[in-house]
Amino acid sequence: MSEYLFHYNGLLSFTELAFRKQGMSVEAAAIASKNLIEADLRGIDSHGIARLNGYIWLQKAERANFNPNFKIIHETPSTATLDADLGLGLHSANFGMQLAIEKAKQVGTGWVAIQNSNHFGIAAAHAMLALKEDMIGIALTNASPLVSPTHSKERMLGTNPICICFPSNIEPAFVLDMATSAAANGKLEIAQRQGKHLPSNWVQSKEGLASNNAHELKEGGALLPLGGHKGYGLGAMVDILSGVLSGANYGPWVPPFVSFLNPLANLPGNGIGHFVGAMRIDAFRPAAEFKSNMDLWIDAFKKSARIDEKQPVLIPGEPEAKERIQRLEKGIPVHQLVFESMQEIAQDLGIEMPKKL
Amino acid sequence: MSEYLFHYNGLLSFTELAFRKQGMSVEAAAIASKNLIEADLRGIDSHGIARLNGYIWLQKAERANFNPNFKIIHETPSTATLDADLGLGLHSANFGMQLAIEKAKQVGTGWVAIQNSNHFGIAAAHAMLALKEDMIGIALTNASPLVSPTHSKERMLGTNPICICFPSNIEPAFVLDMATSAAANGKLEIAQRQGKHLPSNWVQSKEGLASNNAHELKEGGALLPLGGHKGYGLGAMVDILSGVLSGANYGPWVPPFVSFLNPLANLPGNGIGHFVGAMRIDAFRPAAEFKSNMDLWIDAFKKSARIDEKQPVLIPGEPEAKERIQRLEKGIPVHQLVFESMQEIAQDLGIEMPKKL
Repeated sequence: MSEYLFHYNGLLSFTELAFRKQGMSVEAAAIASKNLIEADLRGIDSHGIARLNGYIWLQKAERANFNPNFKIIHETPSTATLDADLGLGLHSANFGMQLAIEKAKQVGTGWVAIQNSNHFGIAAAHAMLALKEDMIGIALTNASPLVSPTHSKERMLGTNPICICFPSNIEPAFVLDMATSAAANGKLEIAQRQGKHLPSNWVQSKEGLASNNAHELKEGGALLPLGGHKGYGLGAMVDILSGVLSGANYGPWVPPFVSFLNPLANLPGNGIGHFVGAMRIDAFRPAAEFKSNMDLWIDAFKKSARIDEKQPVLIPGEPEAKERIQRLEKGIPVHQLVFESMQEIAQDLGIEMPKKL
Repeated sequence: MSEYLFHYNGLLSFTELAFRKQGMSVEAAAIASKNLIEADLRGIDSHGIARLNGYIWLQKAERANFNPNFKIIHETPSTATLDADLGLGLHSANFGMQLAIEKAKQVGTGWVAIQNSNHFGIAAAHAMLALKEDMIGIALTNASPLVSPTHSKERMLGTNPICICFPSNIEPAFVLDMATSAAANGKLEIAQRQGKHLPSNWVQSKEGLASNNAHELKEGGALLPLGGHKGYGLGAMVDILSGVLSGANYGPWVPPFVSFLNPLANLPGNGIGHFVGAMRIDAFRPAAEFKSNMDLWIDAFKKSARIDEKQPVLIPGEPEAKERIQRLEKGIPVHQLVFESMQEIAQDLGIEMPKKL
């Protein structure tokens, strides 16, 4: 299949236009689009424009509200709980992160639990807002269940990512953004397209047996947690902070992203949940000191003895930062199936396709 | 080899006496002992009384200060940085956690970075202080380097544990306490005693090659991070929060626990570092609501469909809570080699051995 190249601004404007056509305000559409396309820029193709139609279908099914009224329903000097009014996490997590940053300015740290939300794209897009304020940024979200806990054959947890980022001085920032499953669904899709077997410990069959089948999820199987029971614990931590603490749904009750699957009955909470935080570096030590020590940390790890001279030791976030620079300059490749989904959106909403490079 | 049974109070008093003989105050010795023996109670035998001689040797080598003067060197309403004056983490992390709890009472959350400290035993002993206050507890620490980052053959990170605990209502609390390496050193020692091969992905040889050799660490090899590069990211996160943020050492510079290995020259910080936090549940939603939802969460996971009927789905912290009840009642088993190390301490310090059960 072919790939098409688009300029960043083309994908951004197209997404903004689509959101606005469906009733989103100019301001909200600008924020949500920027956070969605940030995934494409950073090379996380599964979470970017490829999901635009998913968000629109959710809105058409009245499971996402493109014109939400965010409400702070609980608050202390360092915390808040936000009801996102069924808005997109692409927008609400940004709002929550700004609130966390404001609180950190006042009392050192800020923490916002968000309920009644929808998927928020890549966690890094939100957490990284903290970096330019010389703060540590944190963003977590739960997601619809695909992962089985240890000894279970049932899907109970989402791929529940953890993102934390630390500012540095000369070196690019340290940005960890990882699913708590062994592999995210996007990696299975790549193996499917290439007709390849999966590494062991990525999935299990619906009976809970070991499997290398890239199609196992479609056949009722489940993703496995990162490294076994510890990954189950980490996924559970993200679920509890994002879902139980905020008053959102959690575990098996997190509503599915795809509009053709219905949420379960008797939900214990509202929508899906996120948890975001910001910690001012200079609430602990002078920011300049911290950032020069981060440079030293990064430098030491990059220079640590390699197993294979040709394989560098990578710093979390470094490959994505490089990809971002390159894609801003040379354009963003869009897979043919994603291109076709954009054409459907364009036709359906009566908007123009962006120009190919 | 034999095992000997001791009552909890016997091990506790013995440890207190040993610490006091070496100059620790009555109050500090009580706190440090309680946190050390909590490991034995919870079944984490590698981190309890087995390490008492290690702490004493560190003090004799003047690398640990048994009479420290803790200083808060930086502070905001929700944060503090503590200089532990080379005290034991068994004591300083408790102090830091109490401070975090006080701050959380005032402004919703409290976060304390600790520098110039020494090893703190099990993370759960500190984090769990938050539970009885209806708070979420968090405790992280860095440790001397044993783990290689992805693509490196050098030891750059400790087993850097993450502990987070959440209060519940009827069910036992959720307590995740995990190393960010695939396996902690204690599991290698068990395999060594049993003459067994290790599972793959636990260690690599000094050349960075795959290995199942339980003695690989002694031969210059390294532990591997949990599930590959994601575990490297998590271990790095713990190192940066504990070491870089606090002003402690980090990465390859974290001083070794064993007194016969010397710290490197030109250290970038002071001692080892911890990071602890407390978040008031009712800073986000009413505590009773949260705790009944935690019960529902735990119940749903315990009831999720089992792969093998005989293998229950476990909740993090549940096995340790059960072990604790049993060991309080029936006594704590002490391995012969550990028993002998206690005899050496008793003779060296002129204190009485506790009575065997």
